This record gives sequence, structure tokens and C-alpha cells, in this order.
Amino acid sequence: MAELDADGMDLIFRNARSQNGFLPKPVSNDQLKALYELMKWGPTTMNTQPMRLVFVVSKEAKDKLAPALSPGNLPKVMAAPATAIIAYDLEFYNHLPRNFPNNPNAKSLFEGKTEHVERTALRNGSLQGAYLIIAARALGLGAGPMSGFDNAKVDAAFFPEGKCKSNFLCNIGYGDPTKIFPRNPRLSFDEACKIA
Amino acid sequence: MAELDADGMDLIFRNARSQNGFLPKPVSNDQLKALYELMKWGPTTMNTQPMRLVFVVSKEAKDKLAPALSPGNLPKVMAAPATAIIAYDLEFYNHLPRNFPNNPNAKSLFEGKTEHVERTALRNGSLQGAYLIIAARALGLGAGPMSGFDNAKVDAAFFPEGKCKSNFLCNIGYGDPTKIFPRNPRLSFDEACKIA
Repeated sequence: MAELDADGMDLIFRNARSQNGFLPKPVSNDQLKALYELMKWGPTTMNTQPMRLVFVVSKEAKDKLAPALSPGNLPKVMAAPATAIIAYDLEFYNHLPRNFPNNPNAKSLFEGKTEHVERTALRNGSLQGAYLIIAARALGLGAGPMSGFDNAKVDAAFFPEGKCKSNFLCNIGYGDPTKIFPRNPRLSFDEACKIA
Repeated sequence: MAELDADGMDLIFRNARSQNGFLPKPVSNDQLKALYELMKWGPTTMNTQPMRLVFVVSKEAKDKLAPALSPGNLPKVMAAPATAIIAYDLEFYNHLPRNFPNNPNAKSLFEGKTEHVERTALRNGSLQGAYLIIAARALGLGAGPMSGFDNAKVDAAFFPEGKCKSNFLCNIGYGDPTKIFPRNPRLSFDEACKIA
């Protein structure tokens, strides 16, 4: 296959919309696993893969997440079959001896370098968050990414050991088309890009 | 279309590889524009769209980029039809009155809040960088993202006015299959994810 057909491009980009409500149709654990198994192939710096995911599915876990949410995001999370906490692991470099054998010193490029670790984790954890959104759409699921929440509360509730930090949240399920907002404009090519 | 077929999933994720060398086959300005017009639909926090792109194509622009590159990345950039500098605009919030009419106060949530602006720009500029990589593949192009370069030198050469900062680079072209490295392992579902 040389390129996606028009329907494929519509599905993952052009017609895809952030979901604000979900149909009462479950998403199975097998679907969540298939989602990870697809998005995991997206590239990261030195194969660092700093993203960590908690799929919040149970009533107990939703109740644990609820106090961290903005009022606008609470009902979306409660209606979603799953809410992914997209986090990053500040000790991602411990996996490099296995995952990036190309450079036997890869781990030492990060260890003890707090600011470099944090930027690398945020950059690459966000790349992986985007792969998750696109992979969900590719698998026929809807994604509703959200930044409106209290990161410190999420971290205290889900990552008390302190090495993982929440980045953003993403509801996953079958979107309710009646809940979608009108689409907002994008910057034009000339506003965002230059050919030099 | 309910979901991508297996060939589509292979194209954008499962068989897609980071390109380390490029065939001598040009990429037109129209293709670079089509790439932006596809990736621009990916979601960002409050439609902030902080990513800014410079497509480095000309000999002059390549020569301007060269001193910032690590020795391993220099030949890849020189062989690539285009090298995208994926940057972010620290004044992205000036576009919010037009691009996020949902909240008339959106701009004031960022203005003057340096740390919040920087994190939002890095997070969302990286999401958009991932959309760029996936969109390139969807359009039949190869992508070779790179972090090994001197950000300060790139910023001084391409963004001297100071409001844009380089995030990462990505070569774009038709990949040379003989230059691809063996694929490195990914974290297992249980290493990266939890269902709660």
C-alpha cells in the first residue's frame, strides 16, 4: 500500500472529531490492549517510550479520578467506557539497555539530568499520546483528549510513588455524534509554515 | 468507514519505520502543503495549535541548518528532500480569540504565564509533530524524526526574533529501504499500561 485512500485519511484526520459524549456501548479490555499494540510502534527519541497509561474503567477508579476533573470534563469521563491517563515515567531510561542497544551508553545520557529527562519525557510522552489518539480512530474508536484537570491530584491518586507524572487525559469509546462541538478553524499553511 | 483495514494500519504504524536515508526522488512544495493540510486536523488543547514548521529544502537553508546537527544526523539531512524543523510558538495564545471562540477568555489563561505557556507549547507542539509523522506516512512519504541537534543554534539561525523554539527535526522524503536499522523492541502492554 503506497498511501491511505481518501476514506482512511478522513477517518484518522479530516473527519475525526474530539468526542464530548459517548454511546452506551462498552470497550473491552481486549480492545484497549489492541490499542496499545497498535500505537506502540510510533517512534520516540532513542526508543525511549516514556509514556505510561492507566485505563480508568471501573467505578472505583473513576471515583478516584473524579475530584481532579474540571466541572466540564466530569460528565464526559463518567460517560466514557474508558479514560486513559497518559502519563510519563521519569525513569524511562532504565529500559534503554534493552530497548536501545544501538548506544550502550544511552542510559547515562539521561540519568541524573533532571531537566533533560523531564523535557524528553514530556516531548516523547506527548508524541505517544498523539499516536494513541490516531490509533484509537484507526481502530474505529472515538477519542476525547482533555487537559482540564488537576495534575497534582491525579498524580497523588494514581502515581503515589512519584516517578510517573500525568500529562493529559483521553476518553475512549464510541462517540455520540450529537455531542460534538462545531469545528474550530485551523491556522493556514502560511500562518503555520514556511518553505526555506 | 468504521476502521482502517490491515494494510492501512501497517502503513501508518505496524510496518512504518524511521527513515535513515532517502531515495533521490523529490518532494514538491505541493506535497509539503498537502502534508500540513492533512496533519492540521489533529486535536490540540483548546485548539492552541502551537506548532510552527520550517521545511528546509534549499541548499542555502540546509547549509544554515548543518552546523546545528550531530555528525550522525548530518548526512541524513543532506540526503532528505526536505527537513522539517518542528518548532512551537510561545505566543500561540494570540490566535485564540479567532481559533477558540468557545472561551472568550482563553488568551488570558496563558498570557504572562511563562511556565504554563512553555508546557502547553511543548505538549501540543509535540502532539502536532506526531500528527505530522503519521500524516506523512498516510500520504506515502517516509519520515525520519531526529532529536540529536543543538536547539540553541537552530533557534538562532531560524527564529532569531525569539518567540519560536525548535522542538525536533523530521526528514521527509521517499525512504531508502537499505538504510533502515533493525527494529528495536517495544515495552509490553503490562510494562507500559494498567487497567484500573
